[in-house]
Order: sequence, then structure tokens, then C-alpha cells
Amino acid sequence: MALRFELLHTDGKARHGRLHTPHGAVETPVFMSVGTQASVKGLTPAQLEDARIQMVLGNTYHLALRPGDELIAEQGGLHRFMGWQRPILTDSGGYQVFSLAANLKIDDHAAVFRSHIDGALLELTPEKAVRIQENLGADIAMCLDECPPADTDAAYREIAVARTLHWAERCRAAHQRVDQTLFAIVQGGTDVALRVRCAEALTKLDFPGYALGGFSVGEPTQQMLTALEPAADALPADKPRYLMGVGKPLDLVLAVARGIDMFDCVLPTRNGRNACAFTEGGQVKIRNACHKRDSAPLESDCVCPVCRQFSRAYLHHLFLAGEMLGPTLLSLHNLAFYSRLMARLRDAIKSGSFAAFCADRLARWGVESL
Amino acid sequence: MALRFELLHTDGKARHGRLHTPHGAVETPVFMSVGTQASVKGLTPAQLEDARIQMVLGNTYHLALRPGDELIAEQGGLHRFMGWQRPILTDSGGYQVFSLAANLKIDDHAAVFRSHIDGALLELTPEKAVRIQENLGADIAMCLDECPPADTDAAYREIAVARTLHWAERCRAAHQRVDQTLFAIVQGGTDVALRVRCAEALTKLDFPGYALGGFSVGEPTQQMLTALEPAADALPADKPRYLMGVGKPLDLVLAVARGIDMFDCVLPTRNGRNACAFTEGGQVKIRNACHKRDSAPLESDCVCPVCRQFSRAYLHHLFLAGEMLGPTLLSLHNLAFYSRLMARLRDAIKSGSFAAFCADRLARWGVESL
Repeated sequence: MALRFELLHTDGKARHGRLHTPHGAVETPVFMSVGTQASVKGLTPAQLEDARIQMVLGNTYHLALRPGDELIAEQGGLHRFMGWQRPILTDSGGYQVFSLAANLKIDDHAAVFRSHIDGALLELTPEKAVRIQENLGADIAMCLDECPPADTDAAYREIAVARTLHWAERCRAAHQRVDQTLFAIVQGGTDVALRVRCAEALTKLDFPGYALGGFSVGEPTQQMLTALEPAADALPADKPRYLMGVGKPLDLVLAVARGIDMFDCVLPTRNGRNACAFTEGGQVKIRNACHKRDSAPLESDCVCPVCRQFSRAYLHHLFLAGEMLGPTLLSLHNLAFYSRLMARLRDAIKSGSFAAFCADRLARWGVESL
Repeated sequence: MALRFELLHTDGKARHGRLHTPHGAVETPVFMSVGTQASVKGLTPAQLEDARIQMVLGNTYHLALRPGDELIAEQGGLHRFMGWQRPILTDSGGYQVFSLAANLKIDDHAAVFRSHIDGALLELTPEKAVRIQENLGADIAMCLDECPPADTDAAYREIAVARTLHWAERCRAAHQRVDQTLFAIVQGGTDVALRVRCAEALTKLDFPGYALGGFSVGEPTQQMLTALEPAADALPADKPRYLMGVGKPLDLVLAVARGIDMFDCVLPTRNGRNACAFTEGGQVKIRNACHKRDSAPLESDCVCPVCRQFSRAYLHHLFLAGEMLGPTLLSLHNLAFYSRLMARLRDAIKSGSFAAFCADRLARWGVESL
């Protein structure tokens, strides 16, 4: 077995664990930084380590199109290709097919679509999603699922869940690589009963880990939480649970409180590129004139390489002058902010003070309980 | 005295020395990376150290316009502002006024021009160039000079040199900061007699260091060398000599052979951003299809962080995918290449094998003696 999950502490539904992978151990709850095209935008692997990033996500859809999964396999796999020797997870490509590709047609056999890069007609089957991910060689691969938009009607949601279950079985049958672990994905939108049924059906198939997909696609946070909690409850306690594509710092706290172990999101790097920094006091728009002469760091108690070395005045200048170092430095700080938040969540769970930690965060962020 | 230059070895006219500054010592010959807007484009100070960069150049014209030299002074000076604790040199702004500003009018009193950023009408006098540089607080500041284009007629060249000499005296009279050293700039284009006269006149003023400006402005390399060598010979042996804005690796070798100690140029970073890498075997255009599946590094014997970790195939992918990490990594490698070339030049001078080293380089680069 390529993956072993140790559940070390629980505090309410919140869990602290350790995920042992072929590329080392990961402390959970964990936030994975997104390296869509075999690069976390603007950052070197050494800088990711400086930000205490434990694990990176690669996007199968993008990598299969460019440079191609076979090329990456020839180059020794994704870890070696991108110079990242810690754990990697790849998604199945399904979500990007639904959100980025053109002329999508989907049936039980496959998703057929046109590449967003060159318009080439392509087909993604569960078997092909597995083969591509085996070529990429991440520690964790994901089953191909169908992820319909938030406003999908109930009838189609049933179809999508049935297809997701069917495809999970086909993915498992196709998956061969022993140094890689395949996770299943629970779908069902915000329909609680459907989510729970999907989670129970996948649990019967006994996967080594489970994801909750199809959240954060436009639904209100409260709806997400209402569907997420019973679905997480329906999953086996001894397996890791991954909430895909989520989210804002508050979302992470609320989802950890409901038993989620793993997260990924483009937010820290995308916001960083757009001159927006995460801080304990809320988001800071570094282009704002109030930062022009501010010699303080983004956060006075942050130990990231950006806060240790650079003032808000300097970061403000970099963005106004159009210097590419600005997006790099804000991305680095934001990832360090996320890593620190996850470390504090783990510490709170370990010390049995998770409820107090959450209450403090929610108060600080001006949020009523959710 | 804020600066001390030790001349340690000579081999022919080539010199190896050590420049002691308030921010540490620099081994010469040295290549300074260009950090125009208080940032070497795309690289952190830590990455510059990884590339063995000893010294950075800041552009006074750009920094005075944005964020402003007074703001930088308030923020503790340029070193602190940009997080670079090793030596810095700032140019006088003259070259950028002549090349970037609009509606330039120049007389003996001042250069009057419009900002290339917002069109504001500005005036640069020798005294103001000094005051701005004192605010920036670099270890070495430069006198304001007049740098006419390569095709300037002989009569105007005389005027520009006379003005440059006059301004050097005014700069020296204005300069007060004791922890900063002011260098004079020799002008005269490719006119050998005029260059030598300018060098001799400045030498009489007894500056602690001298630059050769107005080269690499479009003239053929041979013309530059013909004027450069007697001008360098006319400068005092115990003072550092800085060739401004030069150049290609070959130019550095040829200029070191003629007694130059210091260089700066945008080439390694600009070419890096444009997918062009310097290697011992010549320039590599990393976008070319031949690199698509090449698992070798840019240079097999390069110990820079890029060559130790990434393949040509990966770098090729980053540029084709439009990832900002591509320009960062090629800039980093190119600066490391320049640093290594300078280290090898110093070693050759120390060991008395400079002529052999030059002959080997010229043969490798397919160049007849120059």
C-alpha cells in the first residue's frame, strides 16, 4: 500500500493526522498549493519549502495537453520534472474539462471536448484519466468524476452521481501503479441525501481516501457546509478526506471543524499575483496608497521570508512599477499564511482547544458561527 | 574614506583586486546585476546570492521618479528598501535622461526633460544628481555626465566632454555623504584623443574611482576597444575602473584584458526573460523544439540552482506554457553564468594564465583576436 493515514488526534469532528506517502509524510489538516502546469506560479520549489508547503497539486487536464503526460513520464515523472521531491496529488482532469474545455459532450463512456489551447478534439475516459495520472506519477491520483454546475437540476444530479460511481469502479479497475494511491470523489452538489448516498456507495468500494468534489462552484458557504458535514460523516474515519478547490481561510477553518483533512485552492497564489495579501487582520490590497510609506511588513508576527525582509512600502512599489517580483513575493507570503493557519489548526486539535481557536478566528474575521 | 581598492594581481593589463565598501568587499573584476527599479527583475536577494552576485546597480533616473529618492531615504535607504545588504552602485541618471526621457533640453546648467512615466517636466543638475544619490545611499554614486549618441559629430563631442568635466567638479563639490564614494565618468565617444584628454583631466581631479561611459551605444566592438584601451591606460592604476553598460561575455573578457575592473549590463536578465540562456557553448534559445525532450540541464557542469534541479525540457515547457517561473529561472542561470565567468577571469589573473584563458574563450566562441 502506497499510502498510510494515521489519525493522531480528534477534537470534536476536527482531525489531526499524518499521511505517509512515497515522498514523505504530510501533517493534516494540510493545504496543498496549486501547481497547475507543473509550476506553482512564480515560485521555485525552494520558495515553496520556505512557505512550509508540504504538498503540491498538479492539474491533469493542463499537463496532459501541455507538455503531455508521456513526455513527463519520459522525464522521470512530475516530481522530477518540476523539481519537487515532496508529495504531489493530481486531479483527474474532470473539473477542468467541465470548466475550461469547449464543445463538451459527455456520456457514460467518456467526456469528449476540444482543447482550450489548440481546439484539438479529445476524449477523456476513466481509464484514460488513470493512465495519464500514472504517467504523471503523483503520490495520489483522483478518479474521473462528473462535476456539474451549481444550478444543475435534481434529475441531472442523479445522473452525474451515478456516472461518478460507475467511473470510480472503472478507474479502480484500471489503476495499476503500486506506488500511487487512487482516491474516489463524492459528488451530489448541495443535495444532502444524494451526497450521503454517494459517500456510502463509494465507502462500500473501500478506497484508500475520499474527496468531496463539486463544492465551491458558486453555492453559498452555508449550503456547502450543510451538504459537506453529513457527507464527511458518512465516510470512514480511518481514511483521509479531501475537500477539492476550497478555499478561503474561513472555509478551511469551517471545513476542518467538520472533519476535512486536505484542501487545495488557487486563492493564495492568484490573489498574490493580483496584489492582495492575506493577513490575520484580513486581506490587504498592497496597491492602495496607504501602504506607500509604510515601513512595516505585511504582518509583524509573520516569519515568512517576505515579512522578515520587505516592507509594505517596498511591495507597494514593486506592484506600481510593474516588477514581477511583486507577484512572486505576495504569492510566497500568502502560501506561508495558509501554511501557518493549517499549523495552528493542527496545534489546536492536538491541544484540545479547537473550539476556542475557531471562536477566536470567527470573531477576528467578524463572522457569526456557521 | 568609504571605499578602498586593493590591487592584488595583474597579468598583462588585466587586474584582480578587492573593493572594500561599507557593505562588504567585492572581488574584481566584478559584474554587477542591474536592479533598475530597486529589483533585479524576477529575483529575490537570496536568489542573487545563489547566483553569486556581489553587487547590484540601481538606476537613479527610475528610482527618483518612482518611488522617489526621498521616500527611499525615509525607508532607510536603497539597501534596506530592496533587502540587499551587499554593495550597491547607482548611476547618475544621465544616461536614462538621454535615452528614455522626452523633450530633452540640455545646457551647462542642467538637463531639462519630461518623465517617461507621466510627462512631468523635470530638471536634473549635477547637484541634484548627487543629492538624489545621497538619498538612495548606494556605496558608490556616479557624477552626472553627458552621454551623446554614437553618431554625434566631433564638435558636439567636445562640448559634451567639456560639460562632463565641468559637471564632475560640481558633483564633487556637492557630494557630502561620507559613507558613499563618488566616481567620475570619462566620455569622448570613440575619439581616442578626446577620451584620453577627458581621462587625464578627470585624473587631475583625483576621484576615488573612474568609469568609462558612452560605450556600447551602437558603435562596433573594435571601435569601442580602440578608444577604451588608451583611456583606461590614462587612468591611475590604483583606482577602480568601471565600464558602464557592458556587455556580452566576450566584451567582458576583452575589456578585462584592457584593465577594466567593473561592469554592469541588463543582458543576462533581459535575455533570460526572453527565453535565451547563456552557456559555455553559446546562447541557447530554450523555446526551440529541440529542447522539448532534453532531460539535460542548460549546462552539465554548472552548479547554479537552475542547472542542479531543472532540465531543458522543463524550462522549455515553462516558456511555452507562459509560466512566470521560466523568466525567473533563466535570469538566475544567466547571472550565475556571468558570475562564474568573472570568477574564472579572476582565477586566470591570479594564476598568471590570463592570456591562455582568453585564447581558449575566443576560440570557443569562434572569435579572432580583438
